[in-house]
Amino acid sequence: MLPLGKFPFCFVILCLLVQSGARAQSKDEAWRAQGIVNDASSPSAQLHSVPIRAIKIGGGFWSLRMKTNVEKSIPTLLELLEDHGRVDNFRRLAGGQAAERQGPLYTDSDVYKWMEAAANVLQSEDRPELRAKLDTLVDVVVAAQEPSGYLNTYYVGDRAKLRFTEMYRSHELYCLGHLLQAGIACYRANGNRKLLDAGIKYANYVVEKFGPDKSPALTGHPELEMALVELYRTTGDKRYLDFAGYLFNGERLRLQLSDDQVRYMFSGIPFVARREMEGHAVRALYACSGATDYYLETGDTDYRAALDRLWQDLVERKMYITGGVGSQAAGESIGLAYDLPNESAYAESCAAIANFMWNWRLLLATGKARYADVMERALYNGINSGMSLDGTLYCYRNPLEARSDEDIRHPWYDTTCCPPNLERTFAAIPGYIYATGPAGVYVNLYHTSTLHWHLEGGGDLELHQETKYPWEGEVLLTVTPAAPSEFSVFLRIPAWSRKTTVTIGGKPAPGTPKPGEYFAIQRVWKPGDSIRVQFDTTPRVIAANPRVREDLGRVAVQRGPLVYCLEHLDLTERQSIFDVSLPLGADPGKGFTAEFQPGILGGVVVLHHKGVVTAKTFSQLPLYEALERPLAPAGREIDLTFIPYYAWANRIPGPMEVWIPYTSTTARTPPGRAASAVTP
Amino acid sequence: MLPLGKFPFCFVILCLLVQSGARAQSKDEAWRAQGIVNDASSPSAQLHSVPIRAIKIGGGFWSLRMKTNVEKSIPTLLELLEDHGRVDNFRRLAGGQAAERQGPLYTDSDVYKWMEAAANVLQSEDRPELRAKLDTLVDVVVAAQEPSGYLNTYYVGDRAKLRFTEMYRSHELYCLGHLLQAGIACYRANGNRKLLDAGIKYANYVVEKFGPDKSPALTGHPELEMALVELYRTTGDKRYLDFAGYLFNGERLRLQLSDDQVRYMFSGIPFVARREMEGHAVRALYACSGATDYYLETGDTDYRAALDRLWQDLVERKMYITGGVGSQAAGESIGLAYDLPNESAYAESCAAIANFMWNWRLLLATGKARYADVMERALYNGINSGMSLDGTLYCYRNPLEARSDEDIRHPWYDTTCCPPNLERTFAAIPGYIYATGPAGVYVNLYHTSTLHWHLEGGGDLELHQETKYPWEGEVLLTVTPAAPSEFSVFLRIPAWSRKTTVTIGGKPAPGTPKPGEYFAIQRVWKPGDSIRVQFDTTPRVIAANPRVREDLGRVAVQRGPLVYCLEHLDLTERQSIFDVSLPLGADPGKGFTAEFQPGILGGVVVLHHKGVVTAKTFSQLPLYEALERPLAPAGREIDLTFIPYYAWANRIPGPMEVWIPYTSTTARTPPGRAASAVTP
Repeated sequence: MLPLGKFPFCFVILCLLVQSGARAQSKDEAWRAQGIVNDASSPSAQLHSVPIRAIKIGGGFWSLRMKTNVEKSIPTLLELLEDHGRVDNFRRLAGGQAAERQGPLYTDSDVYKWMEAAANVLQSEDRPELRAKLDTLVDVVVAAQEPSGYLNTYYVGDRAKLRFTEMYRSHELYCLGHLLQAGIACYRANGNRKLLDAGIKYANYVVEKFGPDKSPALTGHPELEMALVELYRTTGDKRYLDFAGYLFNGERLRLQLSDDQVRYMFSGIPFVARREMEGHAVRALYACSGATDYYLETGDTDYRAALDRLWQDLVERKMYITGGVGSQAAGESIGLAYDLPNESAYAESCAAIANFMWNWRLLLATGKARYADVMERALYNGINSGMSLDGTLYCYRNPLEARSDEDIRHPWYDTTCCPPNLERTFAAIPGYIYATGPAGVYVNLYHTSTLHWHLEGGGDLELHQETKYPWEGEVLLTVTPAAPSEFSVFLRIPAWSRKTTVTIGGKPAPGTPKPGEYFAIQRVWKPGDSIRVQFDTTPRVIAANPRVREDLGRVAVQRGPLVYCLEHLDLTERQSIFDVSLPLGADPGKGFTAEFQPGILGGVVVLHHKGVVTAKTFSQLPLYEALERPLAPAGREIDLTFIPYYAWANRIPGPMEVWIPYTSTTARTPPGRAASAVTP
Repeated sequence: MLPLGKFPFCFVILCLLVQSGARAQSKDEAWRAQGIVNDASSPSAQLHSVPIRAIKIGGGFWSLRMKTNVEKSIPTLLELLEDHGRVDNFRRLAGGQAAERQGPLYTDSDVYKWMEAAANVLQSEDRPELRAKLDTLVDVVVAAQEPSGYLNTYYVGDRAKLRFTEMYRSHELYCLGHLLQAGIACYRANGNRKLLDAGIKYANYVVEKFGPDKSPALTGHPELEMALVELYRTTGDKRYLDFAGYLFNGERLRLQLSDDQVRYMFSGIPFVARREMEGHAVRALYACSGATDYYLETGDTDYRAALDRLWQDLVERKMYITGGVGSQAAGESIGLAYDLPNESAYAESCAAIANFMWNWRLLLATGKARYADVMERALYNGINSGMSLDGTLYCYRNPLEARSDEDIRHPWYDTTCCPPNLERTFAAIPGYIYATGPAGVYVNLYHTSTLHWHLEGGGDLELHQETKYPWEGEVLLTVTPAAPSEFSVFLRIPAWSRKTTVTIGGKPAPGTPKPGEYFAIQRVWKPGDSIRVQFDTTPRVIAANPRVREDLGRVAVQRGPLVYCLEHLDLTERQSIFDVSLPLGADPGKGFTAEFQPGILGGVVVLHHKGVVTAKTFSQLPLYEALERPLAPAGREIDLTFIPYYAWANRIPGPMEVWIPYTSTTARTPPGRAASAVTP
């Protein structure tokens, strides 16, 4: 092992990469080259991930979040996990402590997710204190493992006899999945296999005990599937891939599962038979993530067809504009097509993360920018809203409207799945920015950063990105191959950028960048070649499909990847945000001014637009009124200030609205309905 | 007693009334003059009800419903009550039968409500077979009464020790309330006091056992209050009125009720302290009905203030356009202000009935037409929808939108509160059409009918009404006082009639009829004077308050008192009703044609209007799309046929919609958003 502690970690790694390239690394050093989802050898991958450590992230939007994550969120969450006995649940098993087990039956996974978050951080940079905490935790967990390999702090003692007898609810396989993901992340941090080996031991126990000709198994909460595929990628042991396939086939008959169960769990029947997104949002999206992993390795076209069908159903019918998923609190479920209520939206942080994870895998499988668009939407909005700006409070739900002063951000939940999920996601962000393909390098996300990696065709590559994205639309890229060579730089053109200009060395790049696609610039690149990209960040006024009940007659405001909202405290007058409408002319995007305000919410671009308060506020209008003419704005103008949705409820809790009623200023009959008080 | 069976009942009664007037009747004959809510002597009544028997209803909208009610609904429901052991529950007590009690703890009230329905019928006409069934049932019920007066089929045997120990859920006082109402209705049918006396015996038991200085009592489901006031009106015994007041004061402290309980039950705290409509819809509205009864007798201004406040809250913020109340299935509750979802609307039939009952009492208390407007809205729509046209199927919920083919109409519910409630209401309709006041006679509702009654100032009056209302707006009235005399005829001008003309003997009546008010015609009326009223039945396009989330950008269509809807099976093409929008010009009411179709739905006026299907149907549009210009209609025109809401789901179950998305044809930029497929 290299004396990693003695040099700045990144420097050492970068030198290693630049000098040798990951291809040349020995088997023992394989961990250095593995990206999040290590699809380097996946037969059906179009794009290949880049290890987190190959990216040095620079200052900007996400580096602020990542700094808070590592300095505040991760340490304080470990304290809370300790305070609530989640780690003691393991210590008790190893040490024979008498204390009662604490928390619901799935808490082991919360500890594992925290470990994965910490390990993801260590893939970017060395943090000795964090590394020490993680190593200690690895020891605690491994010490709790039984000689057989079984490892679960709930099904012990009197409950040991229930092991694997209630898999529809037991979360045993779910916890195993998170153990494996944590073990793999730890391994990728510094080659330490201790937790990974414990996971393998437990996985072997499961694989040997269950299967088509053995006892039936079921992921009551899918998660293990993607972990098994990643374990296959990490170890090369095909049993894990096959077992994931076995789980996806479902054991409905042998386990006598009901219709409601297979719907809710998104498990138990053949994945390829699924026709729509339904049931528990996180379960469904984890299942889809794992199924995409399975497709990446097998190329099974039935999986691809099912995935395409399900993605279409989600993105065209069941996803919030924030990338959030799950409209119903009942069963934490996805809801019916177009059933996307705003105030009662569930939109669990974990579901937005799962949506991001799924689309990442689809991006690798296809190389299509539309999946990166969904990733970006979820990351900047529905995921980012889940953690307070100071990094210590979390949203479980992420509604798109709030009518009360209820505080939605809390430091702790008894079911604390979301906080460590957010932490592992933010810690991994660098690993999603770039990817490679046979033809060149892909820029998926925009952030100041430097990639030190290599082209698939051979040859090292440094790619430097400088930008104030998402606040500004300009991105400067410097392409530095080891030597001049021909390849493509693929720039994702976000679907929201109506008009994008790309210049190389000051001259227009050939071709037309199209929204929602990768723009390929194929040429002989010389060290230091520069690209300038200018995205169109003109605010966009978004309408939802008329079938979305609650959004008809309303619009949302988006600038770049960010969805905006109104918060009550930004109103200049005392009326309610729910009495305000947005007057829109023939070009609805016009009329906004963007202003960077460094002093609020950690520094954000706010948007100003005029609003209209009718002569009588909405709350003074009758409940039902004959429409003498179509709704048109009439009343007093006021100034509206929109803030990015992710930053809501970071000052004081209070009313918030994403979808704002609008009125058309192009209607020929200006006086609004309020002018006529005829009752129906 | 008169030999009533030998002559047509109405004829005999009418002769009686015409000859003697109710004023001159002996105490024994008092029942003949008592209207639904007998407020003849109520100090705070502005209007006074007229007994059902004083009205002979003629052919038309409600007589069809009433005929079905008496010939189909009432007989078949009794069979179902028998089949489900609801009557046996009483027989068992009297006869010591061993059979297990059937149904939830409140089923006695279902039997009582059926009895009230039958008795209401018998106040209009003699039906010997029905009378015999009712008399038998009275005997069965009375035989089950304990010597103490206690009468409840649930709290017997092992459960007897629980009597009055769980009033928050026991429905004991609720059942007593319905027993009293049934007893009073039976008494008013033919003077038979048997059931009434049993009720009085039980009421006395309660009044003697509970009170401020005795054990605490609570109406866990308010209902008894209005029954007690009616019992006071019927007997003159002030203890019942006082006990109603005691119940309205609440026993929160002694019964240690929680916030949630007093909210849900709308009981337990002082009624006059109530600030908003909340909790269980039927409980809240029955409490308000009873409190209005209490106000009518006491004139307590605190009650009046609370009632005004609550009514405003209901009608301006929490009532469906159908007059339905209760947006939430959870707790069958009213929901927050403006929270009026359409598909998931609960809008229990009983709640619309309770709304009708409350507004009837407010009308009597104030003489203000706005309450009759709400009565009419509820009766024609949210109540009328609750029973199938053939009279054998009932809705418990009355949603304003259906997306599936789920059948909403059923012959039986284990909690079968709605069916007999609908039956007693329809049977009583004649009694709501007219009222009297010191200045003359009031026409509250429009239907072909003849009133044989008297003026409060003295002198018999016959008032004949001839109309095809609600299908047509013309009403012809013939005023026949016993002798020429000066008084006023008060015609309710519905709020929906924009322009109403009234002529007397062909000449315009003096003054201007105002929507939503009574139009008083004061003059010396001579026998045979004729009035012609022409209401404006031009279809009206109704917008909801922008705060109602699901109705923004949508309109409802109303013609006369009837709310209309689209049903899937009326579409001429195969698209979904949810892909259709309504193009509206500068005068949104224009563009409808009304057509009476005798062959469908028992004969209804349907409305035709053009609709627009966008080039792509809504379901083919993206979920979110940048709004290039405000939504305007573009696409193919199709013919839409609207049917009255009350008649939905009477052909085949299927999709239905009351609130239709609309587009403005006055927008300057005709191409709709579908034309631009730029993604957000």
